Amino acid sequence: MHVLKNAWYVAAWCSELSEQPRSRTLLGQPVLLARKSDGSAVALGNRCPHRFAPLHMGTWNGNSIQCGYHGLRFGLDGTCVENPTGKGAIPRQARIPAYRVAEKDGFVWIWMGEAEAADEALIPDFSAMNAPSQRHARGGYLNIKANYQLMIDNLIDLSHVAFLHPTFGTKSMAQGKIDIIEGRRILYVNRLMAGCEAPSYLLAVAGPDRKVDHWLDMTLFMPSSMILASGAARPGQGRVGGAPLSGHVVTPETDGTTHYFFSISLDATQYSEEAVNQFHAQQKQVFLTEDIPMLEGCQALMGTTDLWALQPVLLATDAGPVRARKWLDQLIREESGQGQRASA
Amino acid sequence: MHVLKNAWYVAAWCSELSEQPRSRTLLGQPVLLARKSDGSAVALGNRCPHRFAPLHMGTWNGNSIQCGYHGLRFGLDGTCVENPTGKGAIPRQARIPAYRVAEKDGFVWIWMGEAEAADEALIPDFSAMNAPSQRHARGGYLNIKANYQLMIDNLIDLSHVAFLHPTFGTKSMAQGKIDIIEGRRILYVNRLMAGCEAPSYLLAVAGPDRKVDHWLDMTLFMPSSMILASGAARPGQGRVGGAPLSGHVVTPETDGTTHYFFSISLDATQYSEEAVNQFHAQQKQVFLTEDIPMLEGCQALMGTTDLWALQPVLLATDAGPVRARKWLDQLIREESGQGQRASA
Amino acid sequence: MHVLKNAWYVAAWCSELSEQPRSRTLLGQPVLLARKSDGSAVALGNRCPHRFAPLHMGTWNGNSIQCGYHGLRFGLDGTCVENPTGKGAIPRQARIPAYRVAEKDGFVWIWMGEAEAADEALIPDFSAMNAPSQRHARGGYLNIKANYQLMIDNLIDLSHVAFLHPTFGTKSMAQGKIDIIEGRRILYVNRLMAGCEAPSYLLAVAGPDRKVDHWLDMTLFMPSSMILASGAARPGQGRVGGAPLSGHVVTPETDGTTHYFFSISLDATQYSEEAVNQFHAQQKQVFLTEDIPMLEGCQALMGTTDLWALQPVLLATDAGPVRARKWLDQLIREESGQGQRASA
Repeated sequence: MHVLKNAWYVAAWCSELSEQPRSRTLLGQPVLLARKSDGSAVALGNRCPHRFAPLHMGTWNGNSIQCGYHGLRFGLDGTCVENPTGKGAIPRQARIPAYRVAEKDGFVWIWMGEAEAADEALIPDFSAMNAPSQRHARGGYLNIKANYQLMIDNLIDLSHVAFLHPTFGTKSMAQGKIDIIEGRRILYVNRLMAGCEAPSYLLAVAGPDRKVDHWLDMTLFMPSSMILASGAARPGQGRVGGAPLSGHVVTPETDGTTHYFFSISLDATQYSEEAVNQFHAQQKQVFLTEDIPMLEGCQALMGTTDLWALQPVLLATDAGPVRARKWLDQLIREESGQGQRASA
Repeated sequence: MHVLKNAWYVAAWCSELSEQPRSRTLLGQPVLLARKSDGSAVALGNRCPHRFAPLHMGTWNGNSIQCGYHGLRFGLDGTCVENPTGKGAIPRQARIPAYRVAEKDGFVWIWMGEAEAADEALIPDFSAMNAPSQRHARGGYLNIKANYQLMIDNLIDLSHVAFLHPTFGTKSMAQGKIDIIEGRRILYVNRLMAGCEAPSYLLAVAGPDRKVDHWLDMTLFMPSSMILASGAARPGQGRVGGAPLSGHVVTPETDGTTHYFFSISLDATQYSEEAVNQFHAQQKQVFLTEDIPMLEGCQALMGTTDLWALQPVLLATDAGPVRARKWLDQLIREESGQGQRASA
Repeated sequence: MHVLKNAWYVAAWCSELSEQPRSRTLLGQPVLLARKSDGSAVALGNRCPHRFAPLHMGTWNGNSIQCGYHGLRFGLDGTCVENPTGKGAIPRQARIPAYRVAEKDGFVWIWMGEAEAADEALIPDFSAMNAPSQRHARGGYLNIKANYQLMIDNLIDLSHVAFLHPTFGTKSMAQGKIDIIEGRRILYVNRLMAGCEAPSYLLAVAGPDRKVDHWLDMTLFMPSSMILASGAARPGQGRVGGAPLSGHVVTPETDGTTHYFFSISLDATQYSEEAVNQFHAQQKQVFLTEDIPMLEGCQALMGTTDLWALQPVLLATDAGPVRARKWLDQLIREESGQGQRASA
């Protein structure tokens, strides 16, 4: 799989984990997710090294998982701590991966690369979506039968809103001015529609001439976690007045399938809980009926061929997704030792 | 795919096309089929060269298709005529295939090979099925999970009727005298059961001795469009008195799946519309319950291995299908420049 | 496929065969199974050598099968005996495999290797399960989406009962003393839990201290037919008093799927017919809800990679399945002429 291993990915919403272990494939690897007796999250390799049984079919006691096939028990560090068969000798090689996890901003983050490189300071910062001034709805999850990079492309180039989402997209969204800024493992793709006709849902902001400066600013925490700030203000005022935030996190499942975690966060003084939940339900509806059929349709026509090998005809608006792809390619090359060390 | 590209294939029944574009895979290629404002048929490549979106998911305005993902618009000649994103520059390479089509005899014919070689005079002639003296039923369509050549083999060697279709087949049909005649890209495989016991549905033709000359004459317009004339007359009279015609057109979808278009045409003075429709319904029933399960069963046992590699044991009655296959192989070799130019 | 060809496999329960031919894939080969007019079982290759039609779709007259596509007829020895097409010449190469079969102990056994090596004396001996003193229930069949060797591993290492089957397994079952004995193409893997707490279903045997010697003795007739004797007696008495027998026969279907035939046989003086049938129904329930999900889960995590290539961490209790695998590997090597002739 073409993925960056040394990175934090969302494994699940915190709300998805319990003391009942569950299985999820992440970056092509089988992962068991559960909660410890003390409530904290755990992620272990979900394949027993003995006979390759799915460990989540076994018994989790809050601190260790016992394989449901022949009873090997693995502790939180992935080592085998009990062999209840025969005379009980524990083979030294009997171990499963134990992944670093961290719960933050409603997400269970997982690090599947080199353990020593795991640094929680590198976890994408979703705190803005959880600020006290905000009211949020989260827990959105969809599975997409397309490679995760297609979903990143989709989100980084929001020109598509003008065409794929007719109920709220406007033509001007395809024509905004795009600024691409690189931060420390962060790519900002900011889009400004200056002096445009306000989309219907932003009319309240506009004056009698119905004009606004409308912005769609996407922050991509490399490799695949995104926050979109979507706001408007009267022309010339700059990006003032706050903006609804939406979270868009994709995690590779397999080469051809993707986990998609989505959420929304609105100004608590302006939006009731009901309104926020309604927006969240609309998000899901739009993804389900518009984005996902399109992405899966593209993937079907691409087959298993790499995007570049298909020689796509690129547009100016592809600058964002192309920059994201090139950067990711570079990070993956560096990780595998094939590229030069980039300045972090 | 092992297919002849420079040839006319049936893409659809005329009745299947409307101003609502539809997608169909033909010769392994994604094709968009629609009608122009003036009612004429259009066939375009169905894959946007930008992000490989299925174009039929976009908007067809009667003269151009706008991609539903990022809005590129393609005209009837396949060139991009509008880029509504950014500053609107149109990349020169942004084009999709525009296929020659022709509507004739109820079919939408498509030419997917070299455009300059497309010659409507080469379209298989189904006019006999639509003569004023005839009453026809058409629009029959089935999808077969088998390679298209298996269906051609099936139709060219009608010995199988004696065994696969017990409700109307007779043993004599497997024993007729076969004449194979080559025309200009046409293969005639004529089968005569001279002085045979009349099948029940031809008894009316026979005299008191119940004997007839029964013929099953298949015309294959290379590579894959067929008309069957199935008639009978009193012994020794020759092929007189007209014959019911049935149309059997197969178009490769993928290596392992096939479009099958079928129709029937009977003497209008002898058959009511109801009778013709009933025959058509019976055709479908027979294909669905007898031919298709058999073809799909054969394909499953052949896997993806080529017929010749499996070393089939051939019978005398295979002369027709073998000739059709060898000829098709030769045409494909010539097309790819690997064979010598055959005399047309 | 990694299978031994020169061996007897169960093709079906006798009760599954009738004069209506049926198709079953065995060792990756399509096989037609039917009964002759005299009631005896027949197994023929199910693929017509002409156009590769599934022969079971044709007509079986009790002594020959006529292909349902073009009418070739094959006799009991697999040669073509009739060509009803054209002038009726029979191509010499028109033949299908005719497999040796034998009905014994309720099974239809099939030999798919070299005909001259077929020796009914080599048929696994299931007579003990059918002794007059026993009452049996048979006919159990399940299809498993896992390689047949995973099911053999499962059955040869019954440590798993302690974990996978909580309703009747006990911890001691994972700790018994294992004896592995090799016979003439038979592997005995005997397991004794001496002086253990009696499992609930064996309490009747125990004295007031609830202790028993409990044994689980598996007999593997190479390559894949098994009988389990599962009994208990008061400590120190040895294996006395008879034991319930269960039959576990696996036959490779494809690389990734397996036929599983199971049955049970109990002491007729102790168990009513109803009780035996109930045990048989419980067997099925356990396989369906516990073994099969586990095996299919393992197979999914192994993909198409060979067990050894995955470097399993082996336990002492793997001695049985490892011995069975090594022996099978050796037999397959010998058969293909790559290994040295082993002493039979």
